[in-house]
Amino acid sequence: MKYTVITGASSGIGYETALAFASRGKNLVLVARRNVELEKLKSEIVKITSNLDVVIIATDLSVTKNVYDLYEGLRDYQIETWINNAGFGNFATVGNQNLNKIETMLHLNIEALTILSTLYVRDYLNVEGSQLINVSSAGGYRIIEDSVTYCATKFYVSAFTEGLAQELKGLGAKMKAKVLAPASTETEFAKHAFGLEEFSLKGVLPKYHTAKEMAAFMLKLYDSEKILGYVSGITYEFELKDPVFPYVAIKKN
Amino acid sequence: MKYTVITGASSGIGYETALAFASRGKNLVLVARRNVELEKLKSEIVKITSNLDVVIIATDLSVTKNVYDLYEGLRDYQIETWINNAGFGNFATVGNQNLNKIETMLHLNIEALTILSTLYVRDYLNVEGSQLINVSSAGGYRIIEDSVTYCATKFYVSAFTEGLAQELKGLGAKMKAKVLAPASTETEFAKHAFGLEEFSLKGVLPKYHTAKEMAAFMLKLYDSEKILGYVSGITYEFELKDPVFPYVAIKKN
Repeated sequence: MKYTVITGASSGIGYETALAFASRGKNLVLVARRNVELEKLKSEIVKITSNLDVVIIATDLSVTKNVYDLYEGLRDYQIETWINNAGFGNFATVGNQNLNKIETMLHLNIEALTILSTLYVRDYLNVEGSQLINVSSAGGYRIIEDSVTYCATKFYVSAFTEGLAQELKGLGAKMKAKVLAPASTETEFAKHAFGLEEFSLKGVLPKYHTAKEMAAFMLKLYDSEKILGYVSGITYEFELKDPVFPYVAIKKN
Repeated sequence: MKYTVITGASSGIGYETALAFASRGKNLVLVARRNVELEKLKSEIVKITSNLDVVIIATDLSVTKNVYDLYEGLRDYQIETWINNAGFGNFATVGNQNLNKIETMLHLNIEALTILSTLYVRDYLNVEGSQLINVSSAGGYRIIEDSVTYCATKFYVSAFTEGLAQELKGLGAKMKAKVLAPASTETEFAKHAFGLEEFSLKGVLPKYHTAKEMAAFMLKLYDSEKILGYVSGITYEFELKDPVFPYVAIKKN
């Protein structure tokens, strides 16, 4: 039996992506910190279809040990798709940013994603149909004022994943790696990045996507041969694209 | 009395940068893991000029606590320039990379640099003449095969520092932030990245710079109004440039 793993599944794009993959008949491993939210999601999925196996794992992936424990705990599962969606942002100037929050952000957005990607590639490199999808951001291609450090983490995710995707092609591997780069989406993201109790994009931004729309884009990327699924921060259009960053292949004898 | 702080000063570009700033009459705080090498550098500097104060600090900046301790220990110093040069690379496919080494690389190349940059900006934002120079790489603008994760760390450094430089301009701050992006340089870098005992670029690469040449480029960047000092990985020419990545200012009110 094959599974799709989704981190950060308790809300927003991760939550809707879980519903979208369930509608495709995919068994799910749903990972997030909040067990109550994962339980709610699981019961919503079971209402739609009772044929799927839905495994929920409550863990905080900003703690490195938990990252390895998560992967080890999934050794007996056959993982068809791994989606590193967990991550958060921070709105502040560099001089005013809270370094505790920044460290947690670096551990989650960069370190956890790198460890999980590496372990998944190591084990599934030559398994037909395997896919790794890492969620970056439009801010992983353009730096946004007052989000410099967050955007830098997403430049890391974009460069790492685009590079990996091309490395896999060069190796003739069966696994595919892809990057999803959303722009503003109505989720808990902004609330968390501003450190507020409640926040809505309604009336603040002229344009944004719903999490459900982003999950539909995620499926389009999943079905595509392209490496990058990119939402323009200007037009808000979704495009399936070739990698943006230059990739230099080294000649081998 | 003013000081220039240089991390990763025990060899390579950091070592030669220390000599270059000493030749400009700058007092130095030299940071690296290897005390013996720092002592050698200090005695070499004292031979050239005995008028300078040279402080050496042996510490491993891949350990987060050491990063904060370093900065706290320098509270009584007036820091004119802070150069985050410490960092290392890794040559391997993502599937074959050693995750212990990768974690250490993320902590040093990304986390230590972010913490030290943030603390320095917080304290010196409005001090005339203050400069932060972060050492990235040509690989922070182009992904190099078999160095995907290393390059991703340098995309982070480039985006973080270019973004910060433009944020500082937008704020009208007195501090300047700059990025140095070397291409292949004859240092201990490749040896460390390959995990070899000995390694020379001689005969391996048709073109590269010496660490002394890179230190001269560092001084040119220091003297310039430009944000980026970039060595082309193709022509090996050094250019002082405007930022490469798009920066989106958010309209206020």
